[in-house]
Amino acid sequence: MKKHNYSAGPCILPQEVFEKSAQAILNFNDSGLSILEISHRSKDFVAVMDEARSLALELLGLEGKGYQALFLAGGASLEFLMVPYNLMKEGGKAAYLDSGTWASGAIKEAKFFGETVVVASSKEENYNHIPKGYTVPADADYFHCTSNNTIFGTQIKEFPSLDMPIVCDMSSDIFSRVLDFTKFDIIYAGAQKNMGPAGTTLVIVKEEILGKSGRTIPSILDYEKHIKAESMYNTPAVFPVYASLLTLQWLKNLGGVAAVEKLNNAKAALLYGEIDRNPLFKGAAAVEDRSNMNATFLLNDTAHTEAFDTMWKAAGISGLPGHRSVGGYRASMYNALPIESVQVLVDVMKALETKV
Amino acid sequence: MKKHNYSAGPCILPQEVFEKSAQAILNFNDSGLSILEISHRSKDFVAVMDEARSLALELLGLEGKGYQALFLAGGASLEFLMVPYNLMKEGGKAAYLDSGTWASGAIKEAKFFGETVVVASSKEENYNHIPKGYTVPADADYFHCTSNNTIFGTQIKEFPSLDMPIVCDMSSDIFSRVLDFTKFDIIYAGAQKNMGPAGTTLVIVKEEILGKSGRTIPSILDYEKHIKAESMYNTPAVFPVYASLLTLQWLKNLGGVAAVEKLNNAKAALLYGEIDRNPLFKGAAAVEDRSNMNATFLLNDTAHTEAFDTMWKAAGISGLPGHRSVGGYRASMYNALPIESVQVLVDVMKALETKV
Repeated sequence: MKKHNYSAGPCILPQEVFEKSAQAILNFNDSGLSILEISHRSKDFVAVMDEARSLALELLGLEGKGYQALFLAGGASLEFLMVPYNLMKEGGKAAYLDSGTWASGAIKEAKFFGETVVVASSKEENYNHIPKGYTVPADADYFHCTSNNTIFGTQIKEFPSLDMPIVCDMSSDIFSRVLDFTKFDIIYAGAQKNMGPAGTTLVIVKEEILGKSGRTIPSILDYEKHIKAESMYNTPAVFPVYASLLTLQWLKNLGGVAAVEKLNNAKAALLYGEIDRNPLFKGAAAVEDRSNMNATFLLNDTAHTEAFDTMWKAAGISGLPGHRSVGGYRASMYNALPIESVQVLVDVMKALETKV
Repeated sequence: MKKHNYSAGPCILPQEVFEKSAQAILNFNDSGLSILEISHRSKDFVAVMDEARSLALELLGLEGKGYQALFLAGGASLEFLMVPYNLMKEGGKAAYLDSGTWASGAIKEAKFFGETVVVASSKEENYNHIPKGYTVPADADYFHCTSNNTIFGTQIKEFPSLDMPIVCDMSSDIFSRVLDFTKFDIIYAGAQKNMGPAGTTLVIVKEEILGKSGRTIPSILDYEKHIKAESMYNTPAVFPVYASLLTLQWLKNLGGVAAVEKLNNAKAALLYGEIDRNPLFKGAAAVEDRSNMNATFLLNDTAHTEAFDTMWKAAGISGLPGHRSVGGYRASMYNALPIESVQVLVDVMKALETKV
């Protein structure tokens, strides 16, 4: 039976990415070698890295605008550390918006370096909305926010305009919607949602903001060193980068970010429509902040839990249970999830309604 | 034509690793899902991580001896930073042996933290041997060495016994030979030589040495946090870890490290025998320090370069050119390279001799 994969990440990727990457493991570019056994300095892999870096910028409309794209290791969690190391001045301060678990993790790491102002937090309400109406101290070295909160199902719809570098963790919604990406000075994202398999992290940096912190930065954490080495300061995660390139190529062929945004909007409208219509369910997040990537929802009566769980599992759905800190359900609808899978879930929700 | 892959890393892996990992990308464990799209928290992947961690310890004879194995991100280069962060006391000092480019990189990162004593260096002789007869300051917080120097083709045959933690970067010869691994307190290795594809790093830590530096360690760099999270502090590199497990299973089925060491000794004897016998060639490294993983050698007369290069390429050999800092040739004979491939190279060397 075909699976409908709602996993929050690592998550569904396009079928052609699975097929092409499996083929590359057996015989890459008809070289007689596996992509797993070639040098990262080989002509073939350097071409992969170069194309992945330029395609990432192209898809976000950032080509030729002073940005560099890097594929680094360590996940968004290592960027929590690299961002303050590269941007926070000795004796300076940083401003963070606390909109969820990962934002909170980024704040914790920044505090290690210096004064870290939390401009607003929705923690007291279990992060069920995006804080708004906050003021960012004018003397902060940068402002950091998290565009989408996978666990809580919230998403920033409008970003502030500020007279300082803006850093955004877009791990769970990058390449899913059109934004004016030139508003941001650093964008980072673990690959394992919309970009590829786990094991590489896209970091997009506006070069002009670097080299100003006055700190001595360990080599492996220094964005300037990674840029100078063309994202090969040390051995990159060859296969994850290649599978990410395949995913970006798939997105480009689909029509790019604008095209996939339409599909994502349609999927989100279908599911949230049912959550709001069906008297058995309710959404977990504030309506105006609902994420188009991760829809969190609950049964109004938990007595229906067993029946519902049995039904969606029987329909071939996987990965639907909510994170323990929210409970209920979380339907992650990343780029590669077809709307047909959303329809299957909606049909199950309707079937539950007629049954109980 | 079958390729004879002498790449220095990423490098040849067992054919069954390519076949099984390609299959897992199409359908992992007959789940109907790709290994690229499953959650790292799924039962199936947790089992992969657990087995990889325990098998790594088992193969090195370290099970039940107070060690923990981690599969982290960032490569050996990130360990260059994590080691001093976790072990070097504020105001303390560390001792390093400088035996090559990567040892030198580790030293550079350690200097960022505090007093870093280089106990000996072979840099002046272009790292053509392993320094010996050095003294390690008794008050150092730890001693760091690099077991094998890929670029220069040297390998430490005897390790010092010291009354302090010993840290060893074994990136390019881990799982290739039997050692008393209990001599070491931290062993780390980028996967992309004998253990798997690029994208994950094995770190083996003796737990009792942690928590003594007095430093505040950023979460993502703290070995204790990674151990507590069972190597899932953040999303691990799912596919590279899985392919590493397949490689470790292959090694176990082969008979473990002792069995592969015999094969490696035979391969090295065959190639070094020809380098020493053939009047056209000479070895680049000191004979007593020759690496069984990477044999570096040169033509006595570079006038034969074109003929030799044409011949080995025609024989299906790839990845043979030496690193630019040594020149000549480098034959990397990692675990998965069959002795038949070494025979092909030796035959080409003999054929060159009869030809010129």
